[in-house]
Formats: sequence, C-alpha cells, structure tokens
Amino acid sequence: MTQAFRHVALFGKPRAEGIREPLLAIARIIESTGARVLFDLATAESVGLDDVERHTVHAIGKHADVAIVLGGDGTMLGIARELAPFRVPLIGINHGRLGFMTDLALDQMAETLPAMLGGRYETDHRFVLDAEVRRGGNVVHHAVALNDVVVSRGVAGGMVEYTARVDGVNMYNQRADGVIIATPTGSTAYALSADGPILYPSLGGLLLVPVAPQTLSNRPIVLPDGVVVEIEITDVRDASAHFDMQSYAHLVPGDIVRARRGVDIVTLLHPVGYNFFATLRQKLHWSIMPSEPHSRA
Amino acid sequence: MTQAFRHVALFGKPRAEGIREPLLAIARIIESTGARVLFDLATAESVGLDDVERHTVHAIGKHADVAIVLGGDGTMLGIARELAPFRVPLIGINHGRLGFMTDLALDQMAETLPAMLGGRYETDHRFVLDAEVRRGGNVVHHAVALNDVVVSRGVAGGMVEYTARVDGVNMYNQRADGVIIATPTGSTAYALSADGPILYPSLGGLLLVPVAPQTLSNRPIVLPDGVVVEIEITDVRDASAHFDMQSYAHLVPGDIVRARRGVDIVTLLHPVGYNFFATLRQKLHWSIMPSEPHSRA
Amino acid sequence: MTQAFRHVALFGKPRAEGIREPLLAIARIIESTGARVLFDLATAESVGLDDVERHTVHAIGKHADVAIVLGGDGTMLGIARELAPFRVPLIGINHGRLGFMTDLALDQMAETLPAMLGGRYETDHRFVLDAEVRRGGNVVHHAVALNDVVVSRGVAGGMVEYTARVDGVNMYNQRADGVIIATPTGSTAYALSADGPILYPSLGGLLLVPVAPQTLSNRPIVLPDGVVVEIEITDVRDASAHFDMQSYAHLVPGDIVRARRGVDIVTLLHPVGYNFFATLRQKLHWSIMPSEPHSRA
Amino acid sequence: MTQAFRHVALFGKPRAEGIREPLLAIARIIESTGARVLFDLATAESVGLDDVERHTVHAIGKHADVAIVLGGDGTMLGIARELAPFRVPLIGINHGRLGFMTDLALDQMAETLPAMLGGRYETDHRFVLDAEVRRGGNVVHHAVALNDVVVSRGVAGGMVEYTARVDGVNMYNQRADGVIIATPTGSTAYALSADGPILYPSLGGLLLVPVAPQTLSNRPIVLPDGVVVEIEITDVRDASAHFDMQSYAHLVPGDIVRARRGVDIVTLLHPVGYNFFATLRQKLHWSIMPSEPHSRA
Repeated sequence: MTQAFRHVALFGKPRAEGIREPLLAIARIIESTGARVLFDLATAESVGLDDVERHTVHAIGKHADVAIVLGGDGTMLGIARELAPFRVPLIGINHGRLGFMTDLALDQMAETLPAMLGGRYETDHRFVLDAEVRRGGNVVHHAVALNDVVVSRGVAGGMVEYTARVDGVNMYNQRADGVIIATPTGSTAYALSADGPILYPSLGGLLLVPVAPQTLSNRPIVLPDGVVVEIEITDVRDASAHFDMQSYAHLVPGDIVRARRGVDIVTLLHPVGYNFFATLRQKLHWSIMPSEPHSRA
Repeated sequence: MTQAFRHVALFGKPRAEGIREPLLAIARIIESTGARVLFDLATAESVGLDDVERHTVHAIGKHADVAIVLGGDGTMLGIARELAPFRVPLIGINHGRLGFMTDLALDQMAETLPAMLGGRYETDHRFVLDAEVRRGGNVVHHAVALNDVVVSRGVAGGMVEYTARVDGVNMYNQRADGVIIATPTGSTAYALSADGPILYPSLGGLLLVPVAPQTLSNRPIVLPDGVVVEIEITDVRDASAHFDMQSYAHLVPGDIVRARRGVDIVTLLHPVGYNFFATLRQKLHWSIMPSEPHSRA
Repeated sequence: MTQAFRHVALFGKPRAEGIREPLLAIARIIESTGARVLFDLATAESVGLDDVERHTVHAIGKHADVAIVLGGDGTMLGIARELAPFRVPLIGINHGRLGFMTDLALDQMAETLPAMLGGRYETDHRFVLDAEVRRGGNVVHHAVALNDVVVSRGVAGGMVEYTARVDGVNMYNQRADGVIIATPTGSTAYALSADGPILYPSLGGLLLVPVAPQTLSNRPIVLPDGVVVEIEITDVRDASAHFDMQSYAHLVPGDIVRARRGVDIVTLLHPVGYNFFATLRQKLHWSIMPSEPHSRA
Repeated sequence: MTQAFRHVALFGKPRAEGIREPLLAIARIIESTGARVLFDLATAESVGLDDVERHTVHAIGKHADVAIVLGGDGTMLGIARELAPFRVPLIGINHGRLGFMTDLALDQMAETLPAMLGGRYETDHRFVLDAEVRRGGNVVHHAVALNDVVVSRGVAGGMVEYTARVDGVNMYNQRADGVIIATPTGSTAYALSADGPILYPSLGGLLLVPVAPQTLSNRPIVLPDGVVVEIEITDVRDASAHFDMQSYAHLVPGDIVRARRGVDIVTLLHPVGYNFFATLRQKLHWSIMPSEPHSRA
C-alpha cells in the first residue's frame, strides 16, 4: 500500500505521566511531513494542550486518515474499539514497553513515522467480535470486542456452569472459572494465560478456551470465523460477561452470551519489515530456550 | 488397624432431598453392630429426627470414635474441617455420585459398614493447611484448610499481582487470576482445574499452582510439606483469600497470605482393598483412552 | 447436495479378521440401491473374493463415484491419500470403534447407506498437505499428508534441533522430541497427544505443535493455510520426517522439511445430521465432567 | 556444615575445547587451600596433563573427600552416577552456561572455592532411582539414574502401549510416545519438556509423566518415594528404556521396567546462600513476565 496521509489524529494514554513531551514531539514529526495533526480532545485536555486543533473521537473518526496512539496495548484497544466503525487505520507507539499493537518504539519515531505517513507501511487487518447478552429473548447488552468476550465467575468461589453452542449445535456443558471467546488478536491476551494457542493475526478463526475447567479432558478449539458461538449460563451464583476486559455486564442463569465476527475491521499499520513472530519472541519470550542444553543430551 | 468402634457419629448433607431414609438405614446398620449412634444435631433437625440421640459437633468431637458422613465431598470437607482438632476418623458415603472422600456406595452399606465398624478398614491420613492473612504485622484472619488456600482476583477483570515466597525466599512475582496452595487432598480439587499435577494422598508435599498466569513459562511446583508459603499481594483492584472454597477473606495490597502444614490430621477410613487410582479413573476419567487407536498407528 | 452414486468402490481394512461378511453385507446393500460395486483388488484378494468385480486403486480413482471404506481411521487415511488426486468422495464405516473419519456404525448400514447413496448426505471437505524434504537444493522426498507432517528424533535419546520458518521468516529455534505440522483433520490425531488445540475441520488453518520442547514457553500456533512452513534441521543424531505416520524419510542436519496446503481435497460424506462435536465427545471423551461436582462447590 | 576437605578430585567435561586452562586454574586454587588435587585419569589424559596426580574413578571414589566437576549438567550427571556408591560430595562449576547442578561460575572460583573447601557450604542431598528391566522373571538390565528412567517408542512412529503399576496396583493403561519416571532432580530435565511439574530437590517424591499420551485426560502424578513403579510393555514395534538419557536397553512386549528409590545419595555442595528458585528463574526463565502487562488491564 502506498497512500500518504494528510489528516493525522493523535491519541495518548489517559492520565499517563510524562506523556506531554512525547506527544508534542510526535506532533512535530507529523507536521514536518506536511500533514495536519488532529488532537484527541480528551488527550489534549488531560495534558493541558489548549492551543492545538482538538476533536472528539467522533469527529476524528469522520475526518482523520490515520490515528496514532501513544500508550500500551490497553490504550490502543480502547481507541481501536471506538474507531472501528469509522475504519480509520491505527499506528501504535509504545510508551513504556513493546506491545502487540503498540509496536513502534518512541525513540525511532523521527525515522519511522515520516516513512509510514508517506505511504511506506504494512497493513494488518484485524476483525472484531460482535457480542450481545440475551435474556428471555431480548438483547440486554451489546458490545464490540477486538480481543475477546469472556464469561467469568464472581468472587464467591463457585464456578460458572454453562452450555457452549456453535451455530445452534451443542458443543459441551462445562463448569469452570469462565470461558473465553477470542479473536486472533485476543489469542495473545487473556486466552494465552488460560493455555490457549496463538492464532496468527490474519487467520480466519475464533478461539474458544475455558478457564480452569472442572474436567481433565478439555482442549481449546479453533472455529471458522463464520460461526455464531453461544454460551448459555445454566447455573452460577454470580457471573459476568466482559468485553476486552474494558466493559462488562452481570449475568443470571438462563442468559445467553452470543458472539460472532463483526462487520468492522480494525486496521493496524506497521513499518515495512514488521514481523509478528519477533514480537512474540521479544514480548512473550516465546519459545525461549534454557540457558544451556539440560541434561538430556 | 483393627479397632472396633462403639460411638458412631452420623452426619448428612445439609438441606439434601431424600436423605432421611438413607440416614435412618445407616443408623440401623450401625446399631446392628452393637454401637451407639450419635446424630449430628443440625442433621437431625434438618430431616426432622426428634427422638434420636443428638449432639453438637463439639460434643461429637469429644465423644465419638468415628464419624460417618452421608453426602458429597463438599459435605465431607466441611465436617472434616470442624472435626480435625478432635482427630475423629471419618467414613464417607456418597449420596449421589462417587467422591474422593465419600468413596463408599450407599447400596453396599449393609455389607461394608459392619466390617469397617468391626475393625476391618484401611487408614488414610491427610494433613491440613494452617493459614492466616497478615496485614501490617497483625493476623487479621485465620483458617484451617484440608484442600487448599486460594488467592483469587475479584470480578472486575483485573489480575492479582503478587510475590510468592518459600521460607522467606522470593520464588517469583506474578500476575494471574489467582494462585492455589494445595495439600495432596486438594490436588484433585481446584488445583486440578488449574492444570496442576495429582499428588498421591500420602505424599509429604505442598502444591503451588497459579490460575491463568500472565506468563508463558510458569509450571506448578511441589514443595516439601515443612515449608512456609507466603503470597504477598502487591497490586490488585479486588481480591480475596479462600479456604477450601468454604470461607474467605477480602485482601488489600500489602496483605500476606501465609500457609503451612497444620498440626491436625484428618483420618479417612476406607474399606479393605481401597484403591486411589481406581477412584481417579472412575471419578475423573483419568487417562481414559480414545474409543479406538486414532490414526497414528 | 443431492447426487446419487452409480459406481461405488468398496475397501476393507487390510488383514483384518472377520471383515469378509460385513464387506459382503455392504456390497449387497449397495447393489440393492441399483449401484454397481467396484471391489478394491487388494481387499478382494485378502478376503478371498474371486468372483466379484475387482479393480486397482488407480482404476477406482478413475471410475468410482464414491468409495466406501470399512475399517478404522488408519485404513481411511491410507485410502484417502491414494484417492486424493482423483477427488473420489469417501464414506467411512467403522469396523470396531467409532473413528473421526469412519463415523458410520456397521449395524446401521442397512438404513443409512441407501439414503446416502441416494444423495442424502453432508459433504465435508478436507485439505491435504503437500510436503517435501529438501537437501542441498534438491527435493529428496515428496509426500502428501491428510493428517500431519512430523519431524521426530530417533531412538538414541538426543533431541532434534531445528529452526521453524513461515514464508521464509524465522519463527523460532528449538530443541524437542519433534514437531508436528497438522491440518485441521490431523489436529485430533498426534497433535492432540502433543497438547495441540482442536481445529474445526473446515477451518482454513495449519497447526504447528512441538513435541516435548526443551523450553517452558512454547505454545502451539495456528497459521493461515496459505503459508509455507519449513523446518530446517540444525542438529540431530538421528531424525526422520513422517507423513501421516504411514511413510517416512530419514533426515540429516541441513535438511529442510517443507509443507504447504496441497491442491487436492479429500471429501468425506456423512449422514444428514452429522455432528463433529458429538464425535469429539464420544471418541475422545472431550470435556467429560467428573462424576460429580468435586469439592469446589 | 563446617568440614574442610583435604583430598579434592577434579573432573572436566570429556573432549571439551578450552578446558585445560580453567582446570589448571581450579587446581591451583585447590592447592592454595592446602588440599591435594586428585585428577580424574580420563580428564587428565584428554587435556594432556601427564605430571599431575591421576586416579581412576574408583580410586577417587575411595579416597577423595569431595569432587569438583567442570562442565555442564550432562557431565555432572555422568560423574554423579559413577560416584554415587562412594557418597563423595560434588561441586559443579559450569563451563559455559549456568546448570542446575553446575551452579558455580568459573570467574568466581577464586573467591567461592576456598570458602567452600574450608567448610562454608550448603548441602543438597539428591536420591537416585534404582532401575531394572525384567523379562520372563529375570533381570536383563540394571541401572542407577539420578534424573530419570524413560520408556520411549522407536523411530517407526508407532506408540508404546503399557500398563503402569504402583506397588503392584494397576494405575492405568496407556498409549504414548513414552513415559518418564523422574526424581526431583530429573523434574527439571526431560520431564519438564513433557509438561511435568517442578519438584523441589528435597521433596520425598517420584514423578510419573507420560510423553504425548493418546488421551485427553492424563495428568502427571507425584508419588511418595517409597513406592515401586512398574511399566509393563504390552504392545510396541520398537521401544527402549533410557537411564538418565545416558544408557539404554531395548524392550520387547512383556518387559517390565521397574524403578524405585535407590540406596545411594548424591550430595551436591553449593555456596552459602544458594537459591534453587533463582536458578529456575535464570536458567529456565521460569515465570518470566511479558515485557509489559498485556491488554487485560
């Protein structure tokens, strides 16, 4: 892809210390490419920037050609969810340590950003989940998730008991701490902690992983991304459905959490030469070897 | 061991339907051996037995030679915890399906129970955990657990961040849904759901298993049962410590959950020929093979 | 799909005891539908059927509209690999216990088979792997696999050391007992033993699972089915590449095992109402629950 | 413990490059403490030391007060197995990278070694396995293992089918790539690759872990160290029993591999302040956290 960007939105991690100067530095780099900087209103307010061009997320969604996010994957996730309906592509710059979505280093911005804004980048499309909670035939909660839809037990210690269905067909009944429906993007988030496999970002698949299931014989399953997954709560003291671990809804027995691939696409832009496996190795220490061959040799 | 029992306590699962008749049948079997039946007061009240000999748990602890429990492992666990200081041995009869501790079938009682009460049984000693929550140098909660001491995150979705120490030595820092300190008895309960190994009941070891840890490289560890394990909460929105999943305490950052082998011993009695592995296979379907060799051959 | 079949090939498990009568019974059912039975030559010879119409696999591939296989998944796998280039659809009848691909029960044939041969069935397309071993720039071995391509250490106890690459990009270096590249079909075979996830049969994904890797931090990865996976042997005493565990090639350091989605499609036919999850539950005891809630409640 | 050593044996990794100078440096440090250096004959020959005091392993076993091993864990394992009957304590110095048993760094020898030889050390006792292969009532192979006894399938791809028994009681029947009986010492070797738990070195337990078992419902089990474990081969094309992965015996159906705790003890000496958990973290990257909290927060 080789399209240059003229209207560049800029977001920062909310309430993050020491983020004002890096944001201004990024703004200068953007302007040096001839593009216009559209500050996110909340970001600008939180760091006290009154004399810059500031816009609501909605206005940014309508007018920006690309959005740059300075923060961690959590920040990126929140902004990606808000901008998803507008299909504004995103560039993530990590403020702190390397993230999966915030994969650019701040100290390489002067070099990397002008190239990317000039059209030299790699495009990485991520699909989202469209999720709802149904109760007695009505939709009582609706959300979009880029990472995952999670059903979790409450604090009292009892497990959630549920039936999982795919396209209306019963998959299994289970008692567990919870269950995760993840996109490939979410496969490296909570699902990974629950022993799920890694899904390559462009895979057309959904991942279903139980958390601490009361059975010896479960395994994660990867489903084609065209299916509808339903989790029907059959028994529970206290449970909730979480969407990207950023919003949630309380659940009662009989509730059905339904998730399917949504229509929106989140587009991430990476520098030329981006390598997902390198991020896995650097961030997650994936497949790191012991410091020497142990005594099997 | 070949000691006959003269004072036999009888407990039933609280508020369980259809438990009156089986309890009375067991009482008759006990009496037929010449022993005296001491009904648990709460049990007798809940099933409306006014004209039997009824005692508080404390009195039973002092006077009974053995206690028979009709119910599931949860019932057994609660009674075992109450009777642990009195060292009254326990016989578990499952009301419903096979349990690890309630391993006798109701329909074999007429045959099995007289033999056991006559002294033909196998003895199975289980140690307990002595646990406390320390806050600013003070013990704010104390509990005994036969299965496990569990630190769990709350419902809000954030992880618990903690440091695990053994005998004062730092083991690791971790973010997770929680962490389980289990006895061998507890290794087949929640710890098993969290992917822990099975510990043979008589092993002198403690098991430490994190629940959904945010790392690719954790593994459960089995420690000698003489150590002191501490979990110090370093960051959390909302967490709690659970003892056998039957009682719990809220936790705040800085709290230390400390567990070590307790002085009490819970003694379970089994029929001659008892086989722990058979229970694993029957109850947990341990190592069950596919219905035929799959296509590797 | 509603296409009736006129030329029906019939295969049996090689050297299987007691297979003659069931084969003849199936042949009679086929003939009762008005279709012609084409016996596999090797099958007919092994059970001593001289006076039936017998054909080589090649002839069957050219002339049969459908092939019926009586045996286990191993038998099915071998025949599927041979018939893959001819795109003859397959119906699997288990001789013994339920298989993933031999999903029909022998005692329901009289009812099920006429319906299927009459056009009432569900179609299940499975892709294959096209694999080769490259040595010094030359292809020294080529094979097609429906389940998996496996690199394994030899008997001497040393591990295989290898580099895994995807589309030429380094994924990781590893020491392990071996590594498995599996199709969705193969995800329920050897890969499952090595702790891989289940891939739904119609998923467009490849699965990469190491066997006993010498690292704490590996995880299986699911890749889109358009990629080329390479395993380059960097050090080993004695290793081999296996294709569906039915053929194999010895490997030396420097060898590259390369696998990608092949052009052939294996089509399985199932009775109307076929349910992959039910097979998982019945055959693998997937997600079977303990015989009662254990003591977490 | 505070016992000074007068006769100090010195071993080096066989055929290791660049090991002559470090060995001589260590010899000088030993001599500077007033102790006498007993060179292992094979080591001395392999690095061309003709004019030093050289002894066979047997003589060293009889006369040395302590043995210093320069190499990796594999070297240490071999020497520990040979010296086990003599109960000579061992000090391991890693030549290369940190090992579990070769835990001292070469560049800290001038400081650490005199202190240890002067009696300031921590003692770490490791038990061994006494193993034998029985065929038709006879012992056809006998070996001692410090890490593990492993039953493995051969190269042909078929699984090993076996029955596991503990003290004569059937535990389970299984098909797998193999099965590992490990000491706590061996729990961080091959058993760890096969997804076993970590056993603290002083735990009185044995670990049983299958390798790639053909079942969804296996779990490692930790047994008290007083039991006898038997693996009876019920079916296999080609299998072998390995002892510390350093020696092995071919197996045929009907063979029984029997292992129990041996009478010998291997004593490792560590510098004061030794910390097993630190080695786990440094060598295995145990419980290393992602480079930043991922998007669950």
